[in-house]
Amino acid sequence: MARLPLYLQCLEALGESTPTVSSGRLAGIANVNSAQVRKDLSYLGSNGVRGVGYDRSTLIDMIRRELGLTEGWPIVIVGAGNLGSALANYGGFLAAGFSLVGVYDIDESKLGPTVDGVTVQSLAALEGDVKANGVAMGVVTTPAAAAQETVDRLIAAGVRSILNFAPCVVQAPKGVDVRNVDLATELQILSYYRTQHR
Amino acid sequence: MARLPLYLQCLEALGESTPTVSSGRLAGIANVNSAQVRKDLSYLGSNGVRGVGYDRSTLIDMIRRELGLTEGWPIVIVGAGNLGSALANYGGFLAAGFSLVGVYDIDESKLGPTVDGVTVQSLAALEGDVKANGVAMGVVTTPAAAAQETVDRLIAAGVRSILNFAPCVVQAPKGVDVRNVDLATELQILSYYRTQHR
Repeated sequence: MARLPLYLQCLEALGESTPTVSSGRLAGIANVNSAQVRKDLSYLGSNGVRGVGYDRSTLIDMIRRELGLTEGWPIVIVGAGNLGSALANYGGFLAAGFSLVGVYDIDESKLGPTVDGVTVQSLAALEGDVKANGVAMGVVTTPAAAAQETVDRLIAAGVRSILNFAPCVVQAPKGVDVRNVDLATELQILSYYRTQHR
Repeated sequence: MARLPLYLQCLEALGESTPTVSSGRLAGIANVNSAQVRKDLSYLGSNGVRGVGYDRSTLIDMIRRELGLTEGWPIVIVGAGNLGSALANYGGFLAAGFSLVGVYDIDESKLGPTVDGVTVQSLAALEGDVKANGVAMGVVTTPAAAAQETVDRLIAAGVRSILNFAPCVVQAPKGVDVRNVDLATELQILSYYRTQHR
């Protein structure tokens, strides 16, 4: 399943000039072996055509449906520092199946339009916006010390899926999915592979 | 293995006022079940003491050794936009087992000290710095269009582990580890869980 977003990214990068793609080609771009690609796609119900491959746009639609990306999930970002700004300026939300409802910060000096064209709103507006827009997903880019409080506020307002970039583990009740993305953790995983390789 | 950085983060967050920790407590903080914690730590060779738990600082040392974090790996960051700046300002490099050698950008207007106290250097200095410092790991925070070229330059200079934050899949030869961290992918994985829960 974790490979589906990767295949989706590769298929979209191929562009409309590539109407069909073989499992071998997709495997090459995605750095996965082609037997694995065929197995994953067959699980989706797509088997391709021998000697031709898979129809690119059909495959994109199937993956998007499996990932639940046909709904344009509304999301919010809390924390308008460098990381929050970087994520807010990520151009691919809509194509990826998401729509950015708002960016929030507790620091009054950060409110208003930024040089990058994002408007930062007061944290006080968070709950109202989440409820009014039926926001199901929140991205946390606050400092570590503010992360748990932010997560609690998001959950109280109705958010059920949280992507936490703050470098700390946050607690959430059952029924709420939290994914932690932390630079140190990612580097440590790379370090582990390097250590094992030697 | 992917849980070891998480345990490390939790153990460090507990602080020195907590000399011993039970598998149940560690499990609670890390959002993992306690049988899994005991299994993971026993794989490391640490079994804890019934009724007392694990010695916190011994456990930290064991995990750091397993992750190869005793060496203070030198790292570089290429791309000094919002994301690169956010990562450069991440305070925990040294504690996490890494030392930041430099931050590089191709844009001359970004060079020099930033408001956050990081000095951005010209991309022309990258190869020399990598070789002089034996840099084994690189973090790529360029736009997607520049990511592959950046990865190629890092590899040519001797880097063997790459953390790619650019929203695209990059190619690397055998023997080079690449981890991709992409906002859209992380959100899509959350979307998948939400879709399956209903």
